Amino acid sequence: MMQSYTIGIDIGGTNTVMGLIRNGEIIEKFSLLTSEHKRHTDLIHAMYEMLLPTINSIGKHNFRGIGIGIPDANAETGNVEYAVNLNWDGIIPFAGDAESVFQLPVKIINDAKAAALGEMHYGAGRDLNHFIMITLGTGVGAGVVINREILLGYESKAATLGHTIIYPNGRFHPGSGLYGSLEMYCSAQGVVLTAIEKLNKGLPSLLDNYTTEELSPKIISECAHKGDKIAIETLHDTAITLGKAMANFAHFSSPQAFILFGGLAGAKDFLIDKAKEEMESNLLKAFKGEINILVSTLPDNDAAILGAASLLLN
Amino acid sequence: MMQSYTIGIDIGGTNTVMGLIRNGEIIEKFSLLTSEHKRHTDLIHAMYEMLLPTINSIGKHNFRGIGIGIPDANAETGNVEYAVNLNWDGIIPFAGDAESVFQLPVKIINDAKAAALGEMHYGAGRDLNHFIMITLGTGVGAGVVINREILLGYESKAATLGHTIIYPNGRFHPGSGLYGSLEMYCSAQGVVLTAIEKLNKGLPSLLDNYTTEELSPKIISECAHKGDKIAIETLHDTAITLGKAMANFAHFSSPQAFILFGGLAGAKDFLIDKAKEEMESNLLKAFKGEINILVSTLPDNDAAILGAASLLLN
Repeated sequence: MMQSYTIGIDIGGTNTVMGLIRNGEIIEKFSLLTSEHKRHTDLIHAMYEMLLPTINSIGKHNFRGIGIGIPDANAETGNVEYAVNLNWDGIIPFAGDAESVFQLPVKIINDAKAAALGEMHYGAGRDLNHFIMITLGTGVGAGVVINREILLGYESKAATLGHTIIYPNGRFHPGSGLYGSLEMYCSAQGVVLTAIEKLNKGLPSLLDNYTTEELSPKIISECAHKGDKIAIETLHDTAITLGKAMANFAHFSSPQAFILFGGLAGAKDFLIDKAKEEMESNLLKAFKGEINILVSTLPDNDAAILGAASLLLN
Repeated sequence: MMQSYTIGIDIGGTNTVMGLIRNGEIIEKFSLLTSEHKRHTDLIHAMYEMLLPTINSIGKHNFRGIGIGIPDANAETGNVEYAVNLNWDGIIPFAGDAESVFQLPVKIINDAKAAALGEMHYGAGRDLNHFIMITLGTGVGAGVVINREILLGYESKAATLGHTIIYPNGRFHPGSGLYGSLEMYCSAQGVVLTAIEKLNKGLPSLLDNYTTEELSPKIISECAHKGDKIAIETLHDTAITLGKAMANFAHFSSPQAFILFGGLAGAKDFLIDKAKEEMESNLLKAFKGEINILVSTLPDNDAAILGAASLLLN
């Protein structure tokens, strides 16, 4: 048996993207909307239906298995536990249920940890021993790499960095019940909230052309590039929060670099440079000028898909 | 050659304590004042003079070497780098200079990491795979254990948790140049500052019987146990800061427990219980009720001395 194929899947709060992988390359991609599926078993069946023709045409015996990156995954047990940004409550036996449906080995890991593994094997982390990946999306996720190993910790709950508190008694996070966590400022929702707070002060802005529901990091970035003051200030505030958080994280694991991923990660002028400046001003002397901020070089969800699939390599 | 002896040394901002060790037990202890020695070479010579009669009587060939726990140590290079709470500036080749004087192998590691190693091998961390040691002393130090290995990170600078920011734009730390770091609230000086802020509001307190210079965590703890309101509030504020910090640290490395060490760690009623309560309220659901707060069971500096000496076991 060759078993030269794997399937890598990235399940986010909004989209689920699946990749057919051979020799570390994504040959074909499939996607569906996560949020359209109320129960996790509905999502698993929808993935199965979409992938079945491909699995059958290649032959199931040629597949090593399926690696899935998914929020709040416990890599040890295969369960998804108390997911903050998904529809499902409590402890969900996701890997076990997926194995039953697919009849293939399934390994799961937190989506951001999957992305960090992808960057480590195939992306911006190839030459780094120590780095922290931060994904700026629906939520703020993270994967911490130490000596080229992903940090899991007890019950594989490590690196839930989006839920660290940056501003005590700050914004309330309805999903986690916590106040002032990084995610409430640097997730898509967090950035939009910052913009709305500024717009509510009544100053004119290009952002006035959009409804609250339409506002997104993408639109805010676009308006910032058109010179809109409120949009620029929004990104600057976001950068300052991110920079403070990165300094704290740097003092914890001493990374050589941060690798940022997500829509915001592309906003170099307004976000990355400012975040680096703020990080530097909150670092001990021994750390200053030593830590790079890199932007993921892998397109779309490829890091998470490839990283999740890499779980099957061991 | 038996080489059954090691020397373990704990160098703190105030005291230096040395232990003669055989079979994981401290047979004899020696101590001197760190701060009395302006240059690091003065301290090394003072240590040498104090230990020489013992080394000679046992025979140098019976020693495996010397392990030293010291703030801001780089375990890879043997240098002490930009120490915040010591007299020395810049990069100091401490292990190399000590080897030259003692003519024995010398390994160094950050003092709190040494204490964590000591707890892991001989103390409260014996049965734990993942824990975080926090030392509450002249400074706030930390050692992070993951899968029974001490976290070092790039240039062995990891776990400088005392310098993470808990209150943005909070108290200024003259040693680090940072604002609002944990150390400015939970070190000896930080706790005293909190008490002084409260005393300055003019309410009567048992602490009024002491000068600002006399105030210490020990005196504040004693007054708290006598029911003094200002002293109790001071410990509660300290606990709240520590609890917030522990929640952030827990979300980073997912420890099974925190192990606290230092004068304050004994103040269970006023500090530990309150810190645990605050930690819990800042934890994600998946972490709640799962993390123990333990107090070091090894007396005095034994954890750091034994942990530093354990560096010679490899």
